Amino acid sequence: MPRLNSFHLPTQDWPADLRAGDHVTLAGAEARHLLSVLRGKPGDEIRLFDGAGREGQFVVQSVQGKASVALEALLLSQTPRPAGGITLAIGWNKSSRRDWLLEKAVELGATGLLFWRASRSQGEPPAEPKPTWSEKLIQSAKQCGAIWLPELGCIPSGCQGLALIATNYDNRYVLWEGAAPSRLFKPEELAVGRSLVVVGPEGGLESAEAEALALAGFQHTSLGPRPLRWETAALHCLCLGYHHTLLTQREQA
Amino acid sequence: MPRLNSFHLPTQDWPADLRAGDHVTLAGAEARHLLSVLRGKPGDEIRLFDGAGREGQFVVQSVQGKASVALEALLLSQTPRPAGGITLAIGWNKSSRRDWLLEKAVELGATGLLFWRASRSQGEPPAEPKPTWSEKLIQSAKQCGAIWLPELGCIPSGCQGLALIATNYDNRYVLWEGAAPSRLFKPEELAVGRSLVVVGPEGGLESAEAEALALAGFQHTSLGPRPLRWETAALHCLCLGYHHTLLTQREQA
Repeated sequence: MPRLNSFHLPTQDWPADLRAGDHVTLAGAEARHLLSVLRGKPGDEIRLFDGAGREGQFVVQSVQGKASVALEALLLSQTPRPAGGITLAIGWNKSSRRDWLLEKAVELGATGLLFWRASRSQGEPPAEPKPTWSEKLIQSAKQCGAIWLPELGCIPSGCQGLALIATNYDNRYVLWEGAAPSRLFKPEELAVGRSLVVVGPEGGLESAEAEALALAGFQHTSLGPRPLRWETAALHCLCLGYHHTLLTQREQA
Repeated sequence: MPRLNSFHLPTQDWPADLRAGDHVTLAGAEARHLLSVLRGKPGDEIRLFDGAGREGQFVVQSVQGKASVALEALLLSQTPRPAGGITLAIGWNKSSRRDWLLEKAVELGATGLLFWRASRSQGEPPAEPKPTWSEKLIQSAKQCGAIWLPELGCIPSGCQGLALIATNYDNRYVLWEGAAPSRLFKPEELAVGRSLVVVGPEGGLESAEAEALALAGFQHTSLGPRPLRWETAALHCLCLGYHHTLLTQREQA
């Protein structure tokens, strides 16, 4: 697919059996952006994606008002959900650095970002992910062309909550500065299946939390002796996993 | 050395033959921070570092006014400059993301951050690194305990400027989205010696720049098919290099 301007069309707005030649409507903020910022007009080609595997090349058919565009599908594709990948469970922080991590998680192909309340968390995550978080993911995907967005979630009940979801994953790790140096994070161990990596909040995990998570089946792992900021640690895991996936794909190609 | 609050004492303020039992003076903003924010008083122990290999554990002897503290050295150490490491030469951008990269470069052990003007740069780097950049590095080092700070520099004259400094490095790479997929970035190739990695500005390098740099001895390398933001690409290299260094150190231990 050529590099076109990308617009997000939520999954529920894609007709189930959409084919080339069929029509869809892009409305709201995305249509306004196309019309007023990019001066879109009939004949222009754009890319639509839903962030859950669907994307397509479309041509603008007609414009209705300031926030509605009728589009005809030219070329459609569906990418299956990746079989594996890294979901991060991040200790909650009241921090502007979260926005930044949301953006980077898309670029680096995270499969999920969960937020949990650790002992040293400042404040408490909301009951559900905020719409502004999804918006941040979408903006990042427009930039880098990611087809799948990370799933967002908020985990109640601290380590107990993490223990409850642990069985949804094939590999379970917790970054812990008390981990033995021999337990250096190995992205190759996360190459097969779904992985959940727990990251502490600013200030790190308490020993009792690291122990509770070990009992719940999480392996302790380390990023080295230097204390990294929480968002650096989170990003570091994603970088290592992303690169390892590329290496593996290239070997298989 | 125990985990103490860290303060920066510039290299020129360390007496050449400082020994345990000798005295130094911490003045200015760092002393004010110790006195007014941390309520430092005689008997408190702190860590001083110069960002160029020197550090020490000191005890507060006396306080003069609001911005001067006399300290006695308890324990001193000097860490040699790392024999290798990654210096990034980053295409200039007018961007708030630079501050963020300065912070992360310290955490991830970059040996240098240079800024150069690429064809697609917005604006022009200053003739010399700004003092606020050094300040950002120092703040980051206080947090993570880094002993060596990255060297900062501004490179005039675009690719020509890069070609002139290339011979100072053992390994020379340029991240280029046109690089063949087989030229995937391999941190192990940067394990020995000093490495210079050129990163494009927002919008990437022009083909002519990638070719000029190849003629100047820079190897094309890729981080994969997805277009990453410039600061993500920069950080990604540092993460991969940092982790590879840890792996190597562990194998040698």
